[in-house]
Amino acid sequence: MPPLSPPSPSFSRRVPEGDERPRRVCDHCGFVDYHNPRVVVGAVCAFEDRVLLCRRAIEPRIGYWTIPSGFLELGESCAEGAARETREEAGVEIEIDGLLALYDVPRIGHVHLVFRARLGGPELAPGHESAEARLFDWSEIPWRRLAFPSVLWSLRRFDEVRGWPSFPPAGNPASDAEGWRELEG
Amino acid sequence: MPPLSPPSPSFSRRVPEGDERPRRVCDHCGFVDYHNPRVVVGAVCAFEDRVLLCRRAIEPRIGYWTIPSGFLELGESCAEGAARETREEAGVEIEIDGLLALYDVPRIGHVHLVFRARLGGPELAPGHESAEARLFDWSEIPWRRLAFPSVLWSLRRFDEVRGWPSFPPAGNPASDAEGWRELEG
Repeated sequence: MPPLSPPSPSFSRRVPEGDERPRRVCDHCGFVDYHNPRVVVGAVCAFEDRVLLCRRAIEPRIGYWTIPSGFLELGESCAEGAARETREEAGVEIEIDGLLALYDVPRIGHVHLVFRARLGGPELAPGHESAEARLFDWSEIPWRRLAFPSVLWSLRRFDEVRGWPSFPPAGNPASDAEGWRELEG
Repeated sequence: MPPLSPPSPSFSRRVPEGDERPRRVCDHCGFVDYHNPRVVVGAVCAFEDRVLLCRRAIEPRIGYWTIPSGFLELGESCAEGAARETREEAGVEIEIDGLLALYDVPRIGHVHLVFRARLGGPELAPGHESAEARLFDWSEIPWRRLAFPSVLWSLRRFDEVRGWPSFPPAGNPASDAEGWRELEG
């Protein structure tokens, strides 16, 4: 039976037996809290010449525009994860046709895998994480209201390979190898 | 102070507040044990026409041959992780020149990112995870003694794009979308 008043978590940093790096180990029960980088999957989704963006209804960067993306969950492929995020955030199905980019954001332990995708149709139904979901003509994209550097990079990459049937994934731009800089608000 | 005899970890599966999926939650301290897929980074590394393989000195698949690969750690980029694994397993530096493949192994929560790389030189110094590190001519590769399906796939992809300056990453072969099948021993 769990105690009625469980103790608060209390972790020490030490090297578990058989390991080579310090990890967080629970002082109460010996649980090793392994942390590994997490995978963020997303997609630049186009319908004809327009691109899908969602206005964030949640922090961080509430009110700013993003491509559908989020953490990959256990049991799904990266492409399935990107399709699920698009379904959750914009209420629409996609067909993925290539990997646009692999971005590393080591300072926060993220690996971003961004796909190129086609929308099944122009009807959108934003989920609870989105205040709004819209298809933008390229000339209308709110460049100064994008949520994250990786959104800007992904859109640029999408434009670079427009019409190409296949392409290598881009990496971080040399000017921002760590994904560090904030976008101008 | 930690208790002298800490209780064993005891987890229940339930949906934490603000979440949408059941997670493992510690009955003692309320710690949420988030599990996300982990990133495995590796590289097919060539020196002139020969390819680097390491014979595993550890389980799983001890005694079988693999490309250098392992879990991405916090604070490193995927390319840095692949270079670290190659340094640890074969004692050699590499120069990465493209992403050969993105393989999903959802049944075990792995995402594999496999790069193509050139070795700095032919001198190898196997680390403690490798019984042996060798450069193989293509005709000598021990196809029936490879450790994992992803090693086989990665080598085939390397061969497919040999001499190509750039290429899209391969995904799982259609015949084995889940990375399920074992190689013949």
